Amino acid sequence: MTEVIAHKLAKKQKEISVAEFFERNKHILGFGNPTRALLTSVKEGVDNILDACEESSILPEVYVEIRNHEEGECKVIIEDNGPGIVKNQIPHIFGRLLYGSRFHAVRQSRGQQGIGISAVVLYGQLTTGKHAKVISKIQEDRPATVTELAIDTNKNRAEVVNRDIIHWDKPSGTRLEISIVADYTRGKRFVYDYLQSVSIVNPHAQITFKEPDGTEHLFERTSEMLPSKCIEIKPHPHGVELGTLIKMSKNTKSRKLSSFLKSEFSSMGDRTTNAVCEKSQLSKDLNPKDMSREQFLALHKAFKKVKIMAPNTDCLSPIGETLIKRSLKHETQEISPEFIVTASRPASVYSGNPFQTEVGIVYGGSLSKDKPVKLMRFANRVPLLYQQGDCVSTSAISSIDWRRYGLEQSSGRGIPSGPAIFLTHVSSTLIPFTSESKEAIADIPEIENEIKLAFRECARKVQSHINKKVRRVKTREKFELITKILPEIAKKSSNMLDKPVPSLDKVITKIMDVVWIEDLIEYEKTSPEPVQSTLFDDSTEKREGGWITKSTIMVVNYKNKPQKFKLYALIPEDAVVGTVTPKPMKITNNFIKWNLDTISPADKIDIFFELAGLDKGDFDENDLYIESINASYVIGADKWEGE
Amino acid sequence: MTEVIAHKLAKKQKEISVAEFFERNKHILGFGNPTRALLTSVKEGVDNILDACEESSILPEVYVEIRNHEEGECKVIIEDNGPGIVKNQIPHIFGRLLYGSRFHAVRQSRGQQGIGISAVVLYGQLTTGKHAKVISKIQEDRPATVTELAIDTNKNRAEVVNRDIIHWDKPSGTRLEISIVADYTRGKRFVYDYLQSVSIVNPHAQITFKEPDGTEHLFERTSEMLPSKCIEIKPHPHGVELGTLIKMSKNTKSRKLSSFLKSEFSSMGDRTTNAVCEKSQLSKDLNPKDMSREQFLALHKAFKKVKIMAPNTDCLSPIGETLIKRSLKHETQEISPEFIVTASRPASVYSGNPFQTEVGIVYGGSLSKDKPVKLMRFANRVPLLYQQGDCVSTSAISSIDWRRYGLEQSSGRGIPSGPAIFLTHVSSTLIPFTSESKEAIADIPEIENEIKLAFRECARKVQSHINKKVRRVKTREKFELITKILPEIAKKSSNMLDKPVPSLDKVITKIMDVVWIEDLIEYEKTSPEPVQSTLFDDSTEKREGGWITKSTIMVVNYKNKPQKFKLYALIPEDAVVGTVTPKPMKITNNFIKWNLDTISPADKIDIFFELAGLDKGDFDENDLYIESINASYVIGADKWEGE
Repeated sequence: MTEVIAHKLAKKQKEISVAEFFERNKHILGFGNPTRALLTSVKEGVDNILDACEESSILPEVYVEIRNHEEGECKVIIEDNGPGIVKNQIPHIFGRLLYGSRFHAVRQSRGQQGIGISAVVLYGQLTTGKHAKVISKIQEDRPATVTELAIDTNKNRAEVVNRDIIHWDKPSGTRLEISIVADYTRGKRFVYDYLQSVSIVNPHAQITFKEPDGTEHLFERTSEMLPSKCIEIKPHPHGVELGTLIKMSKNTKSRKLSSFLKSEFSSMGDRTTNAVCEKSQLSKDLNPKDMSREQFLALHKAFKKVKIMAPNTDCLSPIGETLIKRSLKHETQEISPEFIVTASRPASVYSGNPFQTEVGIVYGGSLSKDKPVKLMRFANRVPLLYQQGDCVSTSAISSIDWRRYGLEQSSGRGIPSGPAIFLTHVSSTLIPFTSESKEAIADIPEIENEIKLAFRECARKVQSHINKKVRRVKTREKFELITKILPEIAKKSSNMLDKPVPSLDKVITKIMDVVWIEDLIEYEKTSPEPVQSTLFDDSTEKREGGWITKSTIMVVNYKNKPQKFKLYALIPEDAVVGTVTPKPMKITNNFIKWNLDTISPADKIDIFFELAGLDKGDFDENDLYIESINASYVIGADKWEGE
Repeated sequence: MTEVIAHKLAKKQKEISVAEFFERNKHILGFGNPTRALLTSVKEGVDNILDACEESSILPEVYVEIRNHEEGECKVIIEDNGPGIVKNQIPHIFGRLLYGSRFHAVRQSRGQQGIGISAVVLYGQLTTGKHAKVISKIQEDRPATVTELAIDTNKNRAEVVNRDIIHWDKPSGTRLEISIVADYTRGKRFVYDYLQSVSIVNPHAQITFKEPDGTEHLFERTSEMLPSKCIEIKPHPHGVELGTLIKMSKNTKSRKLSSFLKSEFSSMGDRTTNAVCEKSQLSKDLNPKDMSREQFLALHKAFKKVKIMAPNTDCLSPIGETLIKRSLKHETQEISPEFIVTASRPASVYSGNPFQTEVGIVYGGSLSKDKPVKLMRFANRVPLLYQQGDCVSTSAISSIDWRRYGLEQSSGRGIPSGPAIFLTHVSSTLIPFTSESKEAIADIPEIENEIKLAFRECARKVQSHINKKVRRVKTREKFELITKILPEIAKKSSNMLDKPVPSLDKVITKIMDVVWIEDLIEYEKTSPEPVQSTLFDDSTEKREGGWITKSTIMVVNYKNKPQKFKLYALIPEDAVVGTVTPKPMKITNNFIKWNLDTISPADKIDIFFELAGLDKGDFDENDLYIESINASYVIGADKWEGE
């Protein structure tokens, strides 16, 4: 009897094709409802285009069109000027799940799973029964191919239904036409928001969005520069799993442990390799194929005990401070926030995958004070619009006590409420998404920690900003009181005593007893000629004919002794420095430093510098630091803590 | 040049094995961090056991042991008394992702993906490099087989490392031993909580949990009855995707549309089939294999226009009101809540999959008033512990304005705060989880809507409960005032006038002017003999030697006219009714109904009934309704609105 059961059950056991799996679980891929399905379809297409263009060093021109048919059916058309796809690869790329070029490469890219675009084809077929149509051209003087295809879900293979050749008036590119069941009325806003966010963090992309009624939205390219290319790297030893290590040893061509370590991993030079072998008490000449599990375990432990250089960050492409500020400013253009702060963490590693975190906070202005702060999330320059509740950035933010930064938060945990927008961007060679729909990042402790550290840094900046502001307001009140009331008293007393009014400069200075620093920022439209700069050679690479940011800093000595100190003004990394007066002591990528000559009591110095390569408003506030003077004497700048 | 790019890119395109995919994306499967990995491993094992035992009609005995090794490595041992697994199937079931028996069956089960248990093996191999060990015995008089296996991730196939035969002192069963990297210290609480929750909603399972220090926790079986077996059904036409319909037509053996509809779908009898064919203007004799996409489209549309019977719910196994109450009571045993309400929706359909929703609310007591309400989520009798933020139940609850029910909720959206626990259970033939880790249900509009409706019903009950309570308290105050002060006044006045004290009954009755209903519930331990009940034949099937619930209802007529009306007392579906006095007019699965004879002013009637088959406390409050009397005259019962 019992045997019968086990045998009976055995007969039901069956292989499940991955296409069949996702056909039944389409919500996992982001097709759970018709609104979201529309966005997911556009997103997968656009992500692919941006990746392919970056890999091929082509400035992307993205065209998205949605045609709204009867009863909830939409035709989605996504076209690019990319490199095109070789004819034989088209059925695999569009008609097979788990097939792609970016899965095995350790390098930052938007697509990593080999699922996205074929999932759109699968969803279209499932909901409308229609075939997908792919037009592709790979060379200027050749015709384009047209492929109509379906997916055989039992086999997870494409069925090519029709193939043809046409003339296509384009040097190269790909066009996908696909019919899906989608809710255009509700989904439209998401598609628009998504494309807008994409264009902000991908300023090199030109995106056109055509609505069913013919309305065209153009998100213009604002930079002719492709993002710096992400270099493919080897896995980093920190955090590589033991099982992966053993698997790598089986596939390596190296016959010695030392060459295995040096050739298959990043950051493993001679010195580190020796140190690892020594710590693990393994001979450098061991053949990795002959090593036991215990030996790999020793090696794996040694990786964690030896100091190994952080992974090269060439494989990552962070958004950068200026773009983050610009993106946040864009979101807040109508609410004139008080200030925007950003923080960027150095690259780190989880499970052998390098990653980097950048965050930003917009504070104040007419942002609602009662509502939860708005979260903006990005991963590898792709905006994440769904599943916020389950994202590591949400849990990282929730674990910080925001009450001391003027935000409301019941019991010091959870998403705070208040006038702020929080942005998080994680870039990595492998973003650990919680599911194939790629909308939330999993709760990896290393990533959560980095996001927390970045937000704490931002929070400190917010705090210091508020403190500075409070101190400045108080001092200004004192200053106005003194400069208005004292002369009045002096005048009245002099009149009463019939004596001349005395000079009050010294008295005022004695009462104020501070060095006062104020600044002013203006923007000027430049001529089409490039900005003259002798300081950086690569200035010609920057965009010409834009805006010049002009910053003036006024320093007044209201102390009763002469003052002499050093002043630092922080500048964005991607700005080009133009005219600077007085002559600075030092200019780096991050700051300009002046050695200010003795300023006599009641004297004033004007400092001026120009920045090119930025948009109007990118740099809208000076971040000033002082050295060789007691910081408590100074209003308007903080103590320099070193680079 | 351009051609070179497309060809160069083509060379990098590669197939990705599903095992390889999940090896790199283990967080998708619930192995994102060592704490969660421990729980996921236990969960996948236990879910499988419960499914296998239910399918084989075996009362499950589950044994979970965790051994804590050095440096974050744990050995997880999961053993059962199930049917065992045929030798040749072991490598497939444990060493291959996307392989299983429950994927293709339209029936409620815990496992549905064919991923879970092989994912545990994959994770163990990845993090410890060790093999999994499976012991299995399928028949009492045969030896057990021992299989040690690994997964070849490039091929997604098992590698059997060793196979042996041993004696195992057990009629049949399976034992899995697996080493994984896990955080026992943090993970322990989750494992305990999970097993406890499992035992509450699976009272037929006996679960033993052995900790590394040898401590054993026993979650005892509290019911000898297996849950009613879930019948496998055909897909329901409502919500089946067009693409699936076309695919089904290709695989059918039917040569006529009418027989295709009747044999491949549920709820399609002759009448409905005719109506669908007529509405779609398709001949019943069409060969489904010859039909065009447009014809299928017409058929697909007709499905939605014709009234088709809801799917048979035999394929579903909801938890049931009593178990839900018991589960909630268990969670709140130390906080003596004010009351518990539940609501259960009829079965519904999304994308052709039947599903059913049950919810419950615990309210008041010493539950914290400042914290967000606690959510308890279940899917197919499996507790969901992670990813709450992204679950459809969370968004359904968040979209209800809870402020009128005494809970705090900023701007009427989001998880409310207050003294309550909310439970949601969704049962379905296919739970649309957001990812393979099966911790959150996707935002399917149909499911969200049903959860909302169920919670609204609960909320109304909460509301009515609060109203009833307020009214009763007010009336009681009035009552006490009258019965204390009036006689006092009468006495003093009589003394002053030197007259006898008059009877006040009629006066009190006139002032009160209500019918007052109060109830009392007591429990009595039964003898081992079965409860005598002539009302239901299946009473012997119920558990013997438990508790008898004794409910006494007192009805007092404080109106100045005789009253005659009908009284309904709701009873749980799974209770067995014993003695009832006075003789009821009707007993159904859901209520007992009395036709109360005329009650004279100031007279009282006692009503009594017994319930068997429930635990102590399962039924702890009467839900009373009245008919043929103005409800505003009655305190302690509501107007009967029909069944």
